[in-house]
Amino acid sequence: MTLTRRDFSRLAALSAAAHFIPASTRAQSSQKKIGYAVIGLGRIAGHFIAGASATTNSQITALVSGHRPKAEKIAAQNNIPASSIYNYENFDEIAHNPAVDAVYVALPNSMHAEYTIRASKAGKHVLCEKPMATSVDDCEKMIAACKAANKKLMIAYRCHYEPTNLRAIKLIRDGSIGQVQTIQSAFGFNIAKGEWRTSKALAGGGPLYDVGIYSLNACRYLTGEEPDHIAAYASTIDHDGRFNEVEENVSWTMHFPSGVVASCSTTYGADMPGYFHVYGSKGWIQVDNAFVYEGLHLRAEASGKQLDEPNPSRDPSQFQAEAEHFSHCIQDSLEPQSPGEEGLRDMRYIAQIYKAAGINV
Amino acid sequence: MTLTRRDFSRLAALSAAAHFIPASTRAQSSQKKIGYAVIGLGRIAGHFIAGASATTNSQITALVSGHRPKAEKIAAQNNIPASSIYNYENFDEIAHNPAVDAVYVALPNSMHAEYTIRASKAGKHVLCEKPMATSVDDCEKMIAACKAANKKLMIAYRCHYEPTNLRAIKLIRDGSIGQVQTIQSAFGFNIAKGEWRTSKALAGGGPLYDVGIYSLNACRYLTGEEPDHIAAYASTIDHDGRFNEVEENVSWTMHFPSGVVASCSTTYGADMPGYFHVYGSKGWIQVDNAFVYEGLHLRAEASGKQLDEPNPSRDPSQFQAEAEHFSHCIQDSLEPQSPGEEGLRDMRYIAQIYKAAGINV
Repeated sequence: MTLTRRDFSRLAALSAAAHFIPASTRAQSSQKKIGYAVIGLGRIAGHFIAGASATTNSQITALVSGHRPKAEKIAAQNNIPASSIYNYENFDEIAHNPAVDAVYVALPNSMHAEYTIRASKAGKHVLCEKPMATSVDDCEKMIAACKAANKKLMIAYRCHYEPTNLRAIKLIRDGSIGQVQTIQSAFGFNIAKGEWRTSKALAGGGPLYDVGIYSLNACRYLTGEEPDHIAAYASTIDHDGRFNEVEENVSWTMHFPSGVVASCSTTYGADMPGYFHVYGSKGWIQVDNAFVYEGLHLRAEASGKQLDEPNPSRDPSQFQAEAEHFSHCIQDSLEPQSPGEEGLRDMRYIAQIYKAAGINV
Repeated sequence: MTLTRRDFSRLAALSAAAHFIPASTRAQSSQKKIGYAVIGLGRIAGHFIAGASATTNSQITALVSGHRPKAEKIAAQNNIPASSIYNYENFDEIAHNPAVDAVYVALPNSMHAEYTIRASKAGKHVLCEKPMATSVDDCEKMIAACKAANKKLMIAYRCHYEPTNLRAIKLIRDGSIGQVQTIQSAFGFNIAKGEWRTSKALAGGGPLYDVGIYSLNACRYLTGEEPDHIAAYASTIDHDGRFNEVEENVSWTMHFPSGVVASCSTTYGADMPGYFHVYGSKGWIQVDNAFVYEGLHLRAEASGKQLDEPNPSRDPSQFQAEAEHFSHCIQDSLEPQSPGEEGLRDMRYIAQIYKAAGINV
């Protein structure tokens, strides 16, 4: 069985109906598009710009960057006036730009808190990349700032809006694999020397912050539960200069209140494609390439049937879906599916994992 | 690339040359065949009888069972004289049967110790199924008894003699996936009500003893290291009478001295095909159906090449290989690759996992 893009749109709608996404991801075309300022023009910003531009309810209206020539080039490509290019010094002037309703924070992790708080004070809603911040304290401050400013805060957990992940959740909620017993998940890659992700000051930590968080978050949305016990080990094997500040590997196991147990791994020392495997009393679900921008593939034995569902969606569809959702929440005063509190929860679990692994955070 | 049976034999020989198997599994055809008494005529005994009979150096010469008619039927099929059928009362008389050099212990776990010790006292070598016993204390007594009797003791870890598992080990030892960082492994099945495996008195524990031990052992032979830290959780979700005495699920994580971290799961509540995934700095290995009698499949990216190697071997080839190895060790006074000490180690780790998970052992 091969699914078309139309099938996937239908599945996303079904999943929304199943209350995983409280608001429909479909925008009302009669409403004004939500204008976004993109803060930080690294790789992921390009995906978001393309994704938001593909929606019916979102558009890129401003850029924030320390590299003016780079920003000017991207502005020209996206019909953004030069007057809507900001840098990190004059960023707060964005308060006076009526074309900007929201910001998309795509900076290194340690800068998420500052720019989320400054944006909310400037009267803008905030879509902030994961991990939400580099400490529980910062997450709480971000939530408080957005609340005080009466602005929405959403953490950019793409997988919450991604059809294959939603399909897996729905199969589980529908009982089609029976009672879930165990989950295994992993995600990692072989990091290059000198990446900001290997700086503790910028990243907060190693692969757990960056990609392990996908497995952590997946175990939570797959079960619909919060882990009540976490045990973990971390290690650094390669003393080649990449891991002077952050760990190379983490493996952890989680126990959930229902009794579901999960085993997860993450690494910056090996290319380890993201996946999750869920085993239930009446079937199983395996999603490979579960956390990347395209090429997701679900296989399952569910309700007695074998499923083989490669996801034909291509980048930037995931960014499109998350932008569409947040804009819709802003337009219709709805709570995002992945609010700041969701990012805060993961940050607390990350802190628990590091503590269990003996890493100071 | 599809491998033939001949290729696999060659690989096994190569692996032996790589010192994972200290002795060749090839027997000298000029030597007298080693005669085995099979103790316990359950399902696995049938596989062993077929496997040993297919070797050039082993034969089944006696049976031990509480069910005389069943034993007589199997004896007739295998040209075993009725005088070489024993029961659990007269078993010790086997000492006087010169056609029996060794025994194969295929009883419920809690009976392994007694029959290993009685067999060694009867002057027979012992090939004992995994798990070796139901306590560390019993394992130590079994080793001591065989040592005192100057008899060999091997634990029937099939995977130590199985070409796909050996192939994975060799790829790792050759450095073809670089420095191993993380391993994930799982194995489980949905157990039927009333199986002896759900009796703590007979089995010692739940899925960890029975099938989780494959993942535990695999992490050890894949790394060639002993874990120095283990954390674990266990749970029982289904209160349907199957898990009154043993746990339903276990997940655990292990840290090895080199820094390799492993995440494992086992269950009696879901059909979870056994696998291991190994991720290294320069490649990866995935073996699916890693622990069953046939249908093993290795995929890898090793030395820059994509490998896809379904294993064409069919049952009882794994039992043939283990019987051949043990007989050869007896014939040539060699130490088995998986001696009692190997079973004892796993038993110690199982006890650690249960302790970490809060289960009394």
